Amino acid sequence: FKLFTLSSNPALTNEVVQQLGCELGKSSVKRFSDGEIQVSIEESVRGCEVYVVQSTAQPGNEHVMELLIMLDALKRASAKKINVVIPYYGYARQDRKARSREPITAKLIANLLEAAGATRVVTMDLHAPQIQGFFDIPVDQLLGVPIVADYFKKKQLDDVVVVAPDNGGVMRARRMADELNVPIAFIDKRRPQPNVSEVMNIVGEFEGKNAIIIDDLIDTAGTITSAANALIENGANAVYACCTHPVLSGPAISRIDGSPIKELIVTNTIELPEEKMIDKITTLSVAPLVAEAI
Amino acid sequence: FKLFTLSSNPALTNEVVQQLGCELGKSSVKRFSDGEIQVSIEESVRGCEVYVVQSTAQPGNEHVMELLIMLDALKRASAKKINVVIPYYGYARQDRKARSREPITAKLIANLLEAAGATRVVTMDLHAPQIQGFFDIPVDQLLGVPIVADYFKKKQLDDVVVVAPDNGGVMRARRMADELNVPIAFIDKRRPQPNVSEVMNIVGEFEGKNAIIIDDLIDTAGTITSAANALIENGANAVYACCTHPVLSGPAISRIDGSPIKELIVTNTIELPEEKMIDKITTLSVAPLVAEAI
Ligand SMILES: Nc1ncnc2c1ncn2[C@@H]1O[C@H](COP(=O)(O)O)[C@@H](O)[C@H]1O
Ligand SMILES: Nc1ncnc2c1ncn2[C@@H]1O[C@H](COP(=O)(O)O)[C@@H](O)[C@H]1O
Repeated sequence: FKLFTLSSNPALTNEVVQQLGCELGKSSVKRFSDGEIQVSIEESVRGCEVYVVQSTAQPGNEHVMELLIMLDALKRASAKKINVVIPYYGYARQDRKARSREPITAKLIANLLEAAGATRVVTMDLHAPQIQGFFDIPVDQLLGVPIVADYFKKKQLDDVVVVAPDNGGVMRARRMADELNVPIAFIDKRRPQPNVSEVMNIVGEFEGKNAIIIDDLIDTAGTITSAANALIENGANAVYACCTHPVLSGPAISRIDGSPIKELIVTNTIELPEEKMIDKITTLSVAPLVAEAI
Repeated sequence: FKLFTLSSNPALTNEVVQQLGCELGKSSVKRFSDGEIQVSIEESVRGCEVYVVQSTAQPGNEHVMELLIMLDALKRASAKKINVVIPYYGYARQDRKARSREPITAKLIANLLEAAGATRVVTMDLHAPQIQGFFDIPVDQLLGVPIVADYFKKKQLDDVVVVAPDNGGVMRARRMADELNVPIAFIDKRRPQPNVSEVMNIVGEFEGKNAIIIDDLIDTAGTITSAANALIENGANAVYACCTHPVLSGPAISRIDGSPIKELIVTNTIELPEEKMIDKITTLSVAPLVAEAI
């Protein structure tokens, strides 16, 4: 097989290449003067099984187009199988019609990937596992929980409780709690009436405990920092947070920096630019997991 | 029917709406904090014939994704027919494998549009007319030549010759010359040996004449300004230039400004930002043509 990288995750891809002891496929992505993408594949792929690593993280639309054009080039170069490794699957939150006339962009992206030539997808922690069913080709979903749980095991914190920051995150928190063999709690939010502000209530035991909030992704960090505040205000000993996908857009970094979160553990499904690598953030690599799935 | 605009050509769409005496469909395109596109269609389209106007001009990848997401939303909102008006079809120059393992992005875009739900395409001056055959749905190609020719007819220049700036543009020049009832010339380029610089030779009568160089698009303006220089140096009286699609990226504006081109006539298939609207450039509207095609 041959393994190619695009722009989103060159460092992760290089780690995977090292783990596998193979070589990185020769290719480049350039821009024409008007911003159109120019993909060059610089070695034969005829009859080969190929892997392309690309997260559709910010700038998401550029990364999606890059990936689609690469797939088109590989298909036309007679690659036998085209495996797409998408560590972070962007647009995953647009996975249903919450209101009338909304697109289901997560499904659109699945259709586009298939139309462009993908024959298998490897991805991590989809926002909803149902997105696997948006594809008619095989999808393998890897999970970040074991990697993050391992890190916390080594930390040997006493008296831990895993906290889901919203009602939708209880399943994920349960999985993490199983790994650590600790109890769970969750933040229950409800809106008593439309246009009345949300009421937040922490369900479960957490006073005096070390809370680990877990989510699949952290975007503007509103949810996670308000959960952290609520936990500390109501008597938690310390608050840690973790997620697989550090989207960290807009006010995220300043919110995390100013929050009572002691440490935020993320993975490298999204490559963080220098300015987002603050002291509080610890990054764990998913390279061993990805290498194993290849 | 209902007519919607996206981000690329709101002014053109508004003109079309006025020509047709209809109303603009209510919709908006916003961004989530992480840059993902949020399309909202704010009126029912169930059972309707809809038109969406979007050029896939700079920023091309963003405009492509916006369009695809809009199509997905319209399809899921049960629109009966989805007509896509693409005044400028981006990626059209990537319409063949010029070298091994190149993508054919113009075909990829066609596939993506169909996958997203387009049922008909209206476009203008495709870089190659063969791109029509990349679609399995109806494609109407409108031509800019009559609009530009009308402008020159009103100018009443004497002793005109239409010039194709390269060997590929002779067909287009012929069409323009027919409209104006004047002769043609063309710039013949050849590379005697690989790695030897190109030789440029003007074929046809042009000394003392008013030359009108015509192309489908002007991108970095290298081709058109070197043609203009050659014409003036060899005795043309004055040089005008025209194209349908003013891509005008990179050094284009400064090259045109510094060139012997007296006036450049373009259309509004691509909306020019303020800083590109220099005195030399005259913009003609394709709105009447588009309105007629709807
Ligand atoms: N990139 C995004 N940033 C913020 N919100 C989004 C984004 N994409 C989709 N959404 C919205 O998030 C909601 C789904 O999020 P969730 O309830 O966490 O599954 C939907 O109502 C979407 O409209
Ligand atoms: N956006 C672009 N800007 C400049 N050149 C391009 C672009 N897209 C494709 N090309 C190249 O332009 C050539 C085709 O242009 P043409 O010969 O004018 O049809 C191909 O070799 C492409 O690789």
